[in-house]
Amino acid sequence: MSETKKNAVKRIGVLTSGGDAPGMNAAVRSVVRAAVYRGIEVVGIRRGWNGLINGDIVRLDERSVAHIIDRGGTILYTARSEEFRTEEGQKKAVSTCKLLGLDGIVAIGGDGTFRGALALSKYGISVVGLPGTIDNDIACTDYCIGFDTAANTAIECIDKLRDTMQSHERCSVVEVMGRNAGHLALYVGLAVGATAVLVPESKESFDTEIIEKIRNARLNGFTHYMVVVAEGAGSAFDVANRIRDEIALDPRVTVLGHVQRGGSPTARDRVMATRMGYRAVEILAAGSTNRIVGVHQGKIFDIDIDEALSMNKGLDMEEWAVLEAMTGL
Amino acid sequence: MSETKKNAVKRIGVLTSGGDAPGMNAAVRSVVRAAVYRGIEVVGIRRGWNGLINGDIVRLDERSVAHIIDRGGTILYTARSEEFRTEEGQKKAVSTCKLLGLDGIVAIGGDGTFRGALALSKYGISVVGLPGTIDNDIACTDYCIGFDTAANTAIECIDKLRDTMQSHERCSVVEVMGRNAGHLALYVGLAVGATAVLVPESKESFDTEIIEKIRNARLNGFTHYMVVVAEGAGSAFDVANRIRDEIALDPRVTVLGHVQRGGSPTARDRVMATRMGYRAVEILAAGSTNRIVGVHQGKIFDIDIDEALSMNKGLDMEEWAVLEAMTGL
Amino acid sequence: MSETKKNAVKRIGVLTSGGDAPGMNAAVRSVVRAAVYRGIEVVGIRRGWNGLINGDIVRLDERSVAHIIDRGGTILYTARSEEFRTEEGQKKAVSTCKLLGLDGIVAIGGDGTFRGALALSKYGISVVGLPGTIDNDIACTDYCIGFDTAANTAIECIDKLRDTMQSHERCSVVEVMGRNAGHLALYVGLAVGATAVLVPESKESFDTEIIEKIRNARLNGFTHYMVVVAEGAGSAFDVANRIRDEIALDPRVTVLGHVQRGGSPTARDRVMATRMGYRAVEILAAGSTNRIVGVHQGKIFDIDIDEALSMNKGLDMEEWAVLEAMTGL
Amino acid sequence: MSETKKNAVKRIGVLTSGGDAPGMNAAVRSVVRAAVYRGIEVVGIRRGWNGLINGDIVRLDERSVAHIIDRGGTILYTARSEEFRTEEGQKKAVSTCKLLGLDGIVAIGGDGTFRGALALSKYGISVVGLPGTIDNDIACTDYCIGFDTAANTAIECIDKLRDTMQSHERCSVVEVMGRNAGHLALYVGLAVGATAVLVPESKESFDTEIIEKIRNARLNGFTHYMVVVAEGAGSAFDVANRIRDEIALDPRVTVLGHVQRGGSPTARDRVMATRMGYRAVEILAAGSTNRIVGVHQGKIFDIDIDEALSMNKGLDMEEWAVLEAMTGL
Repeated sequence: MSETKKNAVKRIGVLTSGGDAPGMNAAVRSVVRAAVYRGIEVVGIRRGWNGLINGDIVRLDERSVAHIIDRGGTILYTARSEEFRTEEGQKKAVSTCKLLGLDGIVAIGGDGTFRGALALSKYGISVVGLPGTIDNDIACTDYCIGFDTAANTAIECIDKLRDTMQSHERCSVVEVMGRNAGHLALYVGLAVGATAVLVPESKESFDTEIIEKIRNARLNGFTHYMVVVAEGAGSAFDVANRIRDEIALDPRVTVLGHVQRGGSPTARDRVMATRMGYRAVEILAAGSTNRIVGVHQGKIFDIDIDEALSMNKGLDMEEWAVLEAMTGL
Repeated sequence: MSETKKNAVKRIGVLTSGGDAPGMNAAVRSVVRAAVYRGIEVVGIRRGWNGLINGDIVRLDERSVAHIIDRGGTILYTARSEEFRTEEGQKKAVSTCKLLGLDGIVAIGGDGTFRGALALSKYGISVVGLPGTIDNDIACTDYCIGFDTAANTAIECIDKLRDTMQSHERCSVVEVMGRNAGHLALYVGLAVGATAVLVPESKESFDTEIIEKIRNARLNGFTHYMVVVAEGAGSAFDVANRIRDEIALDPRVTVLGHVQRGGSPTARDRVMATRMGYRAVEILAAGSTNRIVGVHQGKIFDIDIDEALSMNKGLDMEEWAVLEAMTGL
Repeated sequence: MSETKKNAVKRIGVLTSGGDAPGMNAAVRSVVRAAVYRGIEVVGIRRGWNGLINGDIVRLDERSVAHIIDRGGTILYTARSEEFRTEEGQKKAVSTCKLLGLDGIVAIGGDGTFRGALALSKYGISVVGLPGTIDNDIACTDYCIGFDTAANTAIECIDKLRDTMQSHERCSVVEVMGRNAGHLALYVGLAVGATAVLVPESKESFDTEIIEKIRNARLNGFTHYMVVVAEGAGSAFDVANRIRDEIALDPRVTVLGHVQRGGSPTARDRVMATRMGYRAVEILAAGSTNRIVGVHQGKIFDIDIDEALSMNKGLDMEEWAVLEAMTGL
Repeated sequence: MSETKKNAVKRIGVLTSGGDAPGMNAAVRSVVRAAVYRGIEVVGIRRGWNGLINGDIVRLDERSVAHIIDRGGTILYTARSEEFRTEEGQKKAVSTCKLLGLDGIVAIGGDGTFRGALALSKYGISVVGLPGTIDNDIACTDYCIGFDTAANTAIECIDKLRDTMQSHERCSVVEVMGRNAGHLALYVGLAVGATAVLVPESKESFDTEIIEKIRNARLNGFTHYMVVVAEGAGSAFDVANRIRDEIALDPRVTVLGHVQRGGSPTARDRVMATRMGYRAVEILAAGSTNRIVGVHQGKIFDIDIDEALSMNKGLDMEEWAVLEAMTGL
């Protein structure tokens, strides 16, 4: 019977939803190519779940996805959809699936996207989710598409900042993205050799994490300081003000902002997106549904959506311990 | 007699002052190597004019400047000096010159730096200024060291921004540096294919420069817009608010900030800095003084400091005409 | 009467021919936007002169050239055409112009492209040429579209090479492009702080330009050496062998190759291409023909094709003098 | 007693040996900072094992390793040592360790470096190895420092190459590094969306891996082709010749060469190097020896040197299956 279902997979849809991330195009390309490789047709759905509601679609073949592996953003556009949260919206989406004869949907995005996929699956549509967010805050997977590119964009910017901070012997406070989590700030802080890093998970310890670290750096002979702040830990301007008040430095603030969400994806994001896209098609072709593809213990794996959405993710404690030893020196 | 003076040039100083700019290290290297090539010794003065006041110096030879041509910032550090504006400060600086036997000073920076050089020259010290500022706002020269690197950093960031703005079909407002002038914003606006550009020189015409341009772009079928704002024309947040009020878009703001001041210099900045540094030494070796080195009609030239400081510089009108034709489409 | 002719300009063609160069897309975009701005239609001709012979065309409007300002290569493709050198080929091209009602052609490329344009003009077709080649070897202009990007690509590669050469204390010989001229090698050699540079214009002085420079660098305490060779000065492998034979070093050879011809154009190439494209349309709209657009004394200018093709261009002697002082230290 | 030994660790040495890799400086920095954090002194040994033989050393503290986390190459220089393969050489190295009072050595490099460490350990010196090679061919670890940077350098170059290959509708054959293994070529091939990839592990199937893939791409409507060849699979020139002979294309060859070994390390290489360096000090501080640090199942781990050296590593079969589906389309 699973065999029967397997044969039934003739045409699938692919969409990107929520905040965009570099590598989403590589994932779309991989879904299309992996599908074509198995003789499955692909329909691109534009502007996330809204596109499924409104029938905003485009046929995709191997040519349509040529030369997008190296492009940031998403050729399918993306959006958040209020309408899709309603039963009415979902029913419209299901009608579009039926009209187009879609045997399954690959949805690329974050937790919100996956909750959408779960809703759709209740109507009998097969769904697979791929994790795409620079915040790397999806609990079920060690890695999310876009994280590596965002980290490299951030370190390139901060390396430039350091040039000028060093020349002027100043303190710099840089705010990086990450929503409510400190994954990006921790990783970036390690990579730039930050003097101090403030993440939401540790923001209570401002004095030990920030003030003491800067103080130690000064005692060790340094005359400029790089402080990395996760957006979830508070505004870089507030952090700069506290530093000004407490230790009389005059920090310069930089908010890296949406720059971190764009750019040609790194090798890692392209390869991860390609491997995940391939797995998504493999799952649908095998007649499975309700899966999130991710990385666990260094390997591509997949997990049930319900289970995935119930998980929690903390900072990598080994990385945090290393950071503790590296900062303030 | 000029010949006599020529022979007198045995040792010169070099310093960077004011805001740093990528390519300052390439200029320092060039001064050192051109001097060594002519058998002249070089003393590096650290932290701008303060270093000359305090005797904060370092001997420089061809080895000291190895592998700095590709580094942002300035190995000599930089600062603004209040003390050097006083007669007392200037006299201390002159004493340092005499103690060290400096026959001339090469000062790399902007107009403030040149005014400092002029003050010093009144005490009989030979001085040459090199224009180093990403703002490109020094009147006597078509080109300032650092401008090209800053422009390329800005366009790389804005190209990334466009990825995400396009995916989300949004309006982006980006603030670039430039102090009171629009040179950088105009150049960057041309280079990124901006929808609209606001510079201090045109900020009165907000509606024609910004609102009408966005409107035309929408009428031509575009669904995302890139607005470049020079810091001298007002805050990007204010511009975004006006756009929100007047045409009901919801722009995202990015302030590129100090990132534009760092980074490995581009080929153009390295070559320009090298050519200018060489010329500075040539001038001092020839027994001349009170000159600013610059670029005019595509060639390296030099000009009297007094004359240089009395000049004014407007936007390049040919570039502006081109921008008018390119935007809003 | 010139007014009459002016009104006659309703539709123009644009093509890229010969070797591609980064910034060609920015030039195509500028031609299209400047034309649209003046109410002139544009036809893209693909694959150079062959496209004009075969009617390989595509209509271009402001939307067609969106988001190409930052792309390397040319969306119009390029090729060399044997057939266009024949009278028969040229007549076919003229027929296509007449069929399409083209009042003028903008041809982007090098000297070969301009000779093609000149041939076409004999049949009464208005033509304007834009200089696009990374070799910067077009005599009538100080600057060719693509040169700056190629130079920056080369210095980024050579900066990386230096990391490993320095770690291993080795001699590196790098071959850069430039056809028969040393413009790119001289510029890149200055920008990377090369130990020595070999260009076609100086290749007879191998011992003074290369061997003595390396020797001096060793005497000055350096233990790794970066030698930049222009392709027109001979193979990097031969240069490495001569170094091995004469001074018993064991150089590593890198041929940068076609990498230098691609990549997102730099700010300078985008701005130059945009300004030149605008001027090309201005010329055609004014009823002029047989012009090459270029840069002279820092300004965009244009010159008669015949005159342009009869000019010669040597190395910039001021840059060469600077290089002499900077190398071998 | 292990406690006793722990207390005995007062001073350690660190060296880089064999081919350099981006991230080696980050590893050196991490070893130094992690040691300082634990109150352990660090001595830098220059030029690999030769430095231990000759006493070519430099004291390292937190200041000495400032601002090297973002630098390619290795500040400690590197070399291969013939003398260290002899008993006499090893005894000299042991004498140096005793003279300096080194309680352990961290050696960063590849298998050859680890065999050297093993030899030294026979004389009672504690040793820990860190895997640093862009080839990623060390069997005991999933990841080697430098691989990610090399991969990103390669894809940036190949992205540029594609611009020009696409404009000219040509076939490109690019040779990437990797010594005897195809890890880098496979990863890069996936990331650039290669038409075909040739690795040592599959080079017997030239016709199916290369010829058929190009043929399929042509049948699918593509007119340019990107072939990635691992250096271990044969020369790119030979591959180009076979393509020319068998299917009458005229490929352009690029050998990326040593450029892949340099450059500022990526975020991943900096973080991996930092985590591994920290672990190396942890191991020595705990009184352990003869360990190689690596990554297994996504985590930092360590393994006995003997065991590590006896392992074999093949290509990642899951990645290879994905590549099969992605190429030739």
